[in-house]
Amino acid sequence: MSSDIDTSADVGEEEARDRLIELASRFYDQFAEGDVPSMELPTRSKSNIVFDEESKVWVLGDRHSTRSANSVGGAKKLLKSIYAVEFLANQLDEDRSSTLRELYYLSESWDNDHAQFSSQDESNQIVEDLEVISGVTREDFHMRPEESGATIMGPLELREQTRRGERVIHCQEDVGEGGYQIPNNPDTIEFLDNDAEFILCVETGGMRDRLVENGFDTDYDSLIVHLKGQPARATRRITKRLHDELDLPVVVFTDGDPWSYRIYGSVAYGSIKSAHLSEYLATPAAQFIGIRPQDIESYDLPSDPLSDSDVNALESELDDPRFQSDFWTEQIELQLDIGKKSEQQALASRGLDFVTDTYLPERLDEMGVI
Amino acid sequence: MSSDIDTSADVGEEEARDRLIELASRFYDQFAEGDVPSMELPTRSKSNIVFDEESKVWVLGDRHSTRSANSVGGAKKLLKSIYAVEFLANQLDEDRSSTLRELYYLSESWDNDHAQFSSQDESNQIVEDLEVISGVTREDFHMRPEESGATIMGPLELREQTRRGERVIHCQEDVGEGGYQIPNNPDTIEFLDNDAEFILCVETGGMRDRLVENGFDTDYDSLIVHLKGQPARATRRITKRLHDELDLPVVVFTDGDPWSYRIYGSVAYGSIKSAHLSEYLATPAAQFIGIRPQDIESYDLPSDPLSDSDVNALESELDDPRFQSDFWTEQIELQLDIGKKSEQQALASRGLDFVTDTYLPERLDEMGVI
Repeated sequence: MSSDIDTSADVGEEEARDRLIELASRFYDQFAEGDVPSMELPTRSKSNIVFDEESKVWVLGDRHSTRSANSVGGAKKLLKSIYAVEFLANQLDEDRSSTLRELYYLSESWDNDHAQFSSQDESNQIVEDLEVISGVTREDFHMRPEESGATIMGPLELREQTRRGERVIHCQEDVGEGGYQIPNNPDTIEFLDNDAEFILCVETGGMRDRLVENGFDTDYDSLIVHLKGQPARATRRITKRLHDELDLPVVVFTDGDPWSYRIYGSVAYGSIKSAHLSEYLATPAAQFIGIRPQDIESYDLPSDPLSDSDVNALESELDDPRFQSDFWTEQIELQLDIGKKSEQQALASRGLDFVTDTYLPERLDEMGVI
Repeated sequence: MSSDIDTSADVGEEEARDRLIELASRFYDQFAEGDVPSMELPTRSKSNIVFDEESKVWVLGDRHSTRSANSVGGAKKLLKSIYAVEFLANQLDEDRSSTLRELYYLSESWDNDHAQFSSQDESNQIVEDLEVISGVTREDFHMRPEESGATIMGPLELREQTRRGERVIHCQEDVGEGGYQIPNNPDTIEFLDNDAEFILCVETGGMRDRLVENGFDTDYDSLIVHLKGQPARATRRITKRLHDELDLPVVVFTDGDPWSYRIYGSVAYGSIKSAHLSEYLATPAAQFIGIRPQDIESYDLPSDPLSDSDVNALESELDDPRFQSDFWTEQIELQLDIGKKSEQQALASRGLDFVTDTYLPERLDEMGVI
C-alpha cells in the first residue's frame, strides 16, 4: 500500500472502492492470523512535513506511526475507520456523495456507539488518514467540501459530467457575467477546446469583475480564475489541471501583503495541511505577478501601514522554504523596509483601466508570458 | 425629489444619470440664487429606522437632516458628493461600472485634494446617501459589490444581458453541478420560462449540494437559491423578483440558531443597514421552513448547547419587531428553554435522504406550499 496519492486525475469509483476494501481486508487478515489489528500511516505532524526541493512542493516525510488495537483508544480509532470505510464504499457503490459534516452527523445513526465520532475534527482526521493510506483523494471518495464557489471566465470549452448528464459549456459564450462555476470535483471536467495563452488567478472578486468588465480575457486570451481569497481545493486542482493538460503558464494576482503571498504559496507549492496532496493540487510553475512591494513604490499606490501581525508574517515568510528565492527575499525585505501594504484594487487610483491597459501588460511582458 | 427608491426594477441608465444631474443642478441653482448650498436627506441612524407594520419591512422614518456648506465639514462633504456624482454620471455615460472600493481609491486621482475620501467608510456612506436622495439603487449607478457569488439551480430559463451580448440559460440544462451564478446586478435578467412551484432559499453550501444531488429541484419543481450565509443584495433582489414576477412562494431553510433566524429576517423583512432599500430587496411573504427549535426536539437532532451570545441574540430577537409573531415567540422561547441549537446538516443523522424524503416534504405540506 502506497502513501502516494494517485495524481493521474480521477482514479475512478471502482478503483477507489477497491482500495478501501483492500484496507478493510488487511484487518480481516490480521484477525485471521491471530494478530492484533493495526495500521501504519505516515506521521502528519508539522515536523514530518518537508519541502521537496526538487518538485518544489510540500510533501510528507519518511516518518511513520502505527495505530494499533492494543489500547482502548487505538481500538476505537480503528473501529471508526472501519465504519468510515464501509460508509464510503457504500457511497461509491450507490454513486452518492456527502459532505464531511454529513459524515460526522451520520455516524450518530451507526449501530455501534463506540464507532460514533466525538467531534467533526475526528471524522475529518479519519478521512484524511484514509486519503493518505489508500492513496485516493477525498474527491474520489465522493466527499464534498462545504463550499467551493470559485469561477472561471475565458476562451475555454469544457465538458462537465454531472448527475444529470453531460454539459458542454464555453466559459465565455455559455455563461453570464458571473462566469462558469467550478464544481466540487473538477475531475468531472474534460477540457475540449481553448484559445487561451495563459491563466490568470485573481484573489478578489472586485478585481475579477474589473478584468471581466474590461474584457481582459478576450483581449489577452486569458483564463481568469477567481481564487476567492484562500482558494478551495477544487480551485487549486483545476488550476493545476489547466496548467498541466493545456500547457499554459499560470500567474497569480493578489493583494500586496503577507497573507496574499501565502495564497500564492498555496497555489504554487501547496499547504502544510494538504501536504499529502501537493502533487494533486500544487502548480510549482505558477508565477507571482503582483502586487509586489516594489509596485507600491514605483506606481505610488495608496497603501496602509504594516501592522505588527503583518510584520511577523513577513518575517516568518523569510524563513519559509517556499519563499527562499532571490525574488521573494528582496521583495519581503523591501516591504519590511518601506512598512507598507497595498490592495490590488489600489491600482484604481491611476484610473479604472490602468490595471488592464498598463499594469498587467507590463508585468506579463517582463515575465515573458506575453 | 423623493426619498423612495424606485422599486420598479431597473430605472435604466439614462434615468439614473438624469437624477444625478438633477441633484447637481440643485446646487447650481442654490449658488445662482446666492444661497449657501445644502441638501436635505432622511436621517439614517438606527433611531429613524422603523418597522412598517403594513408592508412588513424596515423603512426610514420621517426625520430629515440638512447637510449644508455653512461649515467646513459640511462643505467638504458636499464637495465629495459632487465629485462622486460626476464620477457616477460619467460611468453611466460610458456604460462602465466599478466597485465601492475602486471609487474610494479612484478619488486619489481627483484634482481637488479636499474631494478625496479619507476612508472607505466615507465613500460607502456617500454612495448610500446618493441612493437615498436620488431614489436610484447603487446597482443602477453601476456600482458593483466586492463579492456576490450565490447560485440558482432549478427549472427556470432566463435571459441575462451581459456586456458580451445576451445569454439564454436554463438553470438545470445549461449549467454544471455548480448551478447558475447570479450576476452582481440581477436586474439584467429577464425570466423567460419556468416549471417551478416554489423557491427554496438554502443557507449552507453543504445542504444546497445535498438537495441538488438528491434531485430535489426536479422532484419538487423547486428553484434552489443558495444564500451563502448572510445573503448578498443580489441574492435578496433576485429572490424578491422571482417571488413577485413568477408569483411563487418562498421558503427559507437555515440552521436552527439565532444568527440563522436573522438570515431569514433579512430575506423577508430587510435589514437595518439597507432599510432605505427594503421595498427593493425584501420578500415579506417568505416563510421560515426550519430548522425550528421544535424540530430539534421532535426529530431528536444532534445539537450543541446555546452559548451566552446565542442566548443574548435570542433574547434580543424576542424584542425585534420582525419576530413579533406567535410562531417566533413560541419557537424562541422553546429554544431558550431547551438550551440547544442544531445545524441543517444535522438532519443527516437520520440518513442522507431524510431531508429530501421526509423533512422538507412534511414541512412543505404543513405550510401548504405543496
